[in-house]
Amino acid sequence: MTDQKAPKSEQTRTLILETALRLFQERGFDKTTMRGIAKEAGVSVGNAYYYFESKEHLVQGFYDRIGAAHQAAVRPILDNETDLQKRLAGVLTSWMDIAAPYHEFASQFFKNAADPESPLSPFSPESEDARQAAIDIHREVLAGAKTKVPAELADVLPELMWLSQMGLVLYWVFDRSPNSEKTRRLAERGAQLTTRGIVLARFRVLRPLVREVHELFADFLPGMAQTATAGARERASDPDPEPDHADPKSA
Amino acid sequence: MTDQKAPKSEQTRTLILETALRLFQERGFDKTTMRGIAKEAGVSVGNAYYYFESKEHLVQGFYDRIGAAHQAAVRPILDNETDLQKRLAGVLTSWMDIAAPYHEFASQFFKNAADPESPLSPFSPESEDARQAAIDIHREVLAGAKTKVPAELADVLPELMWLSQMGLVLYWVFDRSPNSEKTRRLAERGAQLTTRGIVLARFRVLRPLVREVHELFADFLPGMAQTATAGARERASDPDPEPDHADPKSA
Repeated sequence: MTDQKAPKSEQTRTLILETALRLFQERGFDKTTMRGIAKEAGVSVGNAYYYFESKEHLVQGFYDRIGAAHQAAVRPILDNETDLQKRLAGVLTSWMDIAAPYHEFASQFFKNAADPESPLSPFSPESEDARQAAIDIHREVLAGAKTKVPAELADVLPELMWLSQMGLVLYWVFDRSPNSEKTRRLAERGAQLTTRGIVLARFRVLRPLVREVHELFADFLPGMAQTATAGARERASDPDPEPDHADPKSA
Repeated sequence: MTDQKAPKSEQTRTLILETALRLFQERGFDKTTMRGIAKEAGVSVGNAYYYFESKEHLVQGFYDRIGAAHQAAVRPILDNETDLQKRLAGVLTSWMDIAAPYHEFASQFFKNAADPESPLSPFSPESEDARQAAIDIHREVLAGAKTKVPAELADVLPELMWLSQMGLVLYWVFDRSPNSEKTRRLAERGAQLTTRGIVLARFRVLRPLVREVHELFADFLPGMAQTATAGARERASDPDPEPDHADPKSA
């Protein structure tokens, strides 16, 4: 492998990624193969594998793209707005605007990302870079707000806010209301609640509670996505009452 | 209809309920008919309808039974334990013990209860009595604890604790860990967090936050169950990308 990063190769990379996303939508994630993607994109299979080691890497590419678009979209809010609640609500709803075209795909593909052991999970080691970039946005939400955050919570709050956002994304994946209105209302209310909590965190006595909420979210949220999907498979697929997914990874 | 409540009629009622629960487990809720239940129980269809107006009423009968068993099971804790966290953890885990035999059934049947408009939803008007009885248990958890609750939160806390319990039940329905261990850990941690929050509620400034959490739970938790099920149906059932459940009630 060479290290060249000519515009041509960037174009090819983008072409493969966009073709893959289209096929995931048209055929479903499980039924789309690297071979099929290469054929549709008009490149050799070897070439496709040169840019993306696997289908999973294509999804990481998709995450990176959503993340980059989100980072760009939040600039006006983060640069101009100083009200904490508006900053946070703006960040959450602009993510939904960015992700809206992929809502249908997200719900098809979700079962592949719900297992915290999957490289596609937002909680996986493979998603570390995307996760840190997303947490950094919340760090900036706090840093640029009039409302000041106690120093001892500065490490934990951005991650807690990101975990809450992952809960919101879980809600969004399953939300069938037009334009995901329900999730949008939840985002506004969540921003309000978070802001009130942060305002109150100037009282020292409250800070252990914030840490405890953070730990609870960190420990149980990844499992919540996974168990929801396991339950969904069970209810849906088979009249055999014997559960066949003791190991969700194998299903 | 007569109003007689002879032991014989209670026996028949119990027989029909137990037969129904067995058939729901064996055949699934949707495929079980009142006719089938009557036949299997050895009573006339008219007799079955005399005791239970519909399959939905049978499920209400099941809720009532679980509720009554839970009320009995929590007596030793509520009568003897004064530590708030232990009282709450005891109430939550004893519910799981009571419900354990129905775990398989619960996940099959869940889609029928997830729509907040369904009479089977724990949030429906039809479930009012069962819901109030369950909320009363949480009222007693608080009333008998050493830790005292501010009077202005006395109305809202028991319902908030019950709403949290419904979140726990949602987690439990989908939990495939042996003996629902994950949910048990979540119950313990939830009891710990709730207790810490209540201890802190002696600070007046924190009380609006409690009210806000309560409102958020009340507004979004019923929809969370519903949307999870809608998503599950979509992912599972059909390759047709057109969503067919704009009205979840009709699906």
